[in-house]
Amino acid sequence: MALPATRDDAHALDAADDLSGFREEFVLPEGVVYLDGNSLGPLPGRTSARLEEVVRREWGADLIRSWDVHGWMELPARVGRAIAPLIGARPGEVVVTDSTSVNLFKLLAAALRMRPGRGTIVSERENFPTDLYMAQGLADLLGKGFELRTVGRDELASALDERVAVVALTHVDFRTGEQLDMAALTAAAHRVGALALWDLSHSAGAVQVDLEGCGVDLAVGCGYKFLNGGPGAPAYAYAASRLQEGLRSPLWGWLGHADPFEFAREYRPAAGISRLLCGTPPILSLVALECGVEMVTRAGVERLRRKSLALAELFIGLVDRECEGYGFELASPREGARRGAQVSYAHPQGRAIMQDLDRGGVIGDFRPPDLLRFGFSPLFLRFVDVWDAVATLRRVSEERLSRRA
Amino acid sequence: MALPATRDDAHALDAADDLSGFREEFVLPEGVVYLDGNSLGPLPGRTSARLEEVVRREWGADLIRSWDVHGWMELPARVGRAIAPLIGARPGEVVVTDSTSVNLFKLLAAALRMRPGRGTIVSERENFPTDLYMAQGLADLLGKGFELRTVGRDELASALDERVAVVALTHVDFRTGEQLDMAALTAAAHRVGALALWDLSHSAGAVQVDLEGCGVDLAVGCGYKFLNGGPGAPAYAYAASRLQEGLRSPLWGWLGHADPFEFAREYRPAAGISRLLCGTPPILSLVALECGVEMVTRAGVERLRRKSLALAELFIGLVDRECEGYGFELASPREGARRGAQVSYAHPQGRAIMQDLDRGGVIGDFRPPDLLRFGFSPLFLRFVDVWDAVATLRRVSEERLSRRA
Repeated sequence: MALPATRDDAHALDAADDLSGFREEFVLPEGVVYLDGNSLGPLPGRTSARLEEVVRREWGADLIRSWDVHGWMELPARVGRAIAPLIGARPGEVVVTDSTSVNLFKLLAAALRMRPGRGTIVSERENFPTDLYMAQGLADLLGKGFELRTVGRDELASALDERVAVVALTHVDFRTGEQLDMAALTAAAHRVGALALWDLSHSAGAVQVDLEGCGVDLAVGCGYKFLNGGPGAPAYAYAASRLQEGLRSPLWGWLGHADPFEFAREYRPAAGISRLLCGTPPILSLVALECGVEMVTRAGVERLRRKSLALAELFIGLVDRECEGYGFELASPREGARRGAQVSYAHPQGRAIMQDLDRGGVIGDFRPPDLLRFGFSPLFLRFVDVWDAVATLRRVSEERLSRRA
Repeated sequence: MALPATRDDAHALDAADDLSGFREEFVLPEGVVYLDGNSLGPLPGRTSARLEEVVRREWGADLIRSWDVHGWMELPARVGRAIAPLIGARPGEVVVTDSTSVNLFKLLAAALRMRPGRGTIVSERENFPTDLYMAQGLADLLGKGFELRTVGRDELASALDERVAVVALTHVDFRTGEQLDMAALTAAAHRVGALALWDLSHSAGAVQVDLEGCGVDLAVGCGYKFLNGGPGAPAYAYAASRLQEGLRSPLWGWLGHADPFEFAREYRPAAGISRLLCGTPPILSLVALECGVEMVTRAGVERLRRKSLALAELFIGLVDRECEGYGFELASPREGARRGAQVSYAHPQGRAIMQDLDRGGVIGDFRPPDLLRFGFSPLFLRFVDVWDAVATLRRVSEERLSRRA
């Protein structure tokens, strides 16, 4: 891709973009370039209408009957089936339930159970904190013989041995956007007889994921980033079909029971992935997630990935050209294939610069110690947004320099 | 209360009811008597408007900034503070998070931790299944030395010994509506050095609860019954202030961390009740719950309890008078003080009769093996609704008899 010389050239890229029509389906504020869809995806207009319908017509008019007549009871499985192809899973391998954190707990505990005699969970030091915390909490609960061992990213393969029950990693680094090699690391886990658990929170909806092709055992992910499911949208959990019969979640909630409305006294796990359900699901949040997932499905993961990479490549190219000498250091891999859908720059005044950008209508976010983080969520972002964002980055950087001079 | 002789007499009771104005604040279908607010509370009109505002203006327009500028981050604590006085807790003792099931797991595990050397959880056989299942799952996870021991309700006090770490009970029986003696059973737990954990799902919002007065240690409850928080509304968790410093949830999610946005590698629990938070909270569902809780707060628990009892007493009185000989056997305590906010009748054709009632516009529910369950949610029900419900019950019973004749 030749770097556009003018804003009109960026417009031309949008005119040639076969995903450009999706932008109109979102409700977006005027004058804002939203580069934080990797943290909270924006509002699809359809979601607003659908929520109104579910609230007024289903909850309001049909009340308790809606669990049956409007299929509320099926929602966790139904939205799971919709997410499955986005992450390379088969129908019946994904269910929507609880939060990413809670699902990590379930699957880590299930993994330890499937590898009796092994008490070690391996992760990397740079994993998202909640992924580390949930493993620490589980090891703390189980006590002697159980531990989370964290190592540097490059030491992962060599850190594995026959004490390891499960390797738990996040596919795309939340700070740098670096994409880990799912196939190679899963194979490394399998070589020592361990299971591989992947957190797809920063992948699904913007990065191609092939759980089946990589032989992944277990996975989790959140619904409010590239799936545009709304603030605190419920999360999903995946378990490969071959493992489901032996899968034992430690959270024996009534909706994971084989027959919840039998009200039996003894727990009997449901067949298949539904055994990962626990309490009553939050219908309003689930419905919002379903709307977001539907759009991602319609756009297609391959096209989304291609556009996201093009947006990010444009951003990096323009920052190279327009912001040289302002002290930004690319903290993400330059090579697209090694990146997820975000680009981060290190800068000593990162936090203040992000605030300047925000005042200038460009929303990204800051992650300690010094990272400016920009997400390239492909369903709604335009190439001209990228142009405008870099122009603003250049302007606020100039202003900072001149204030200091 | 003298039993009304005519429907007009029932109307007169509504005219004298100082809570009658609340009905207009709900969206209710025409021609339906909704006696299932104990399962799913109906839609407050304000909720619909507030959700629209949160979706369009907060999520849609202010995007990620809403976590700060619209106080999303504070919602779990804020709604917890609103629920606290409804259950006799102090501010800072309640937080809204996850589901009732997940919160049970957290608090049961925390209780076992606070009573080292004791591995027994005691409950009663008639407890709600998810309460039993979560305890079974925890004991199964922890393995040797841990167990759930279930006994009959009358044997509870005598079943306790120094091996018991925690007694976990539901305040109001989901089948019969019988109210357990929270003060006496909590005291019995304390006498053997055990903690007392109460599930308030069938109490909060319709039955007075005095956690502090009863010396209760831990509690959970759901938001979608008498709190009218919407389908699958998030749940709440309570821990007495005196226990919070030593309270260790096994679910170490990032939002329970002392400083989530430090993104530290090691978990450090937040001070106070917030340590029970785990993943990112479902904002849409939380906002809906807040609207429901606000109405309960405005009505006042004492007035709500009084009206709920009056509605239930009217129902029982009318069934006695109008439905004699149709085979209904009162399965709830006749004495109001021993009941929660529901009345159940056993009938061999219970399931079919409930379907007849439903077709007749009276919605209750059926619980195996033979219970018709009617909830008396006091914020929206009228005395004339009770009159109409019993008239319909009589009619469908007559019709069944005549079909058989």
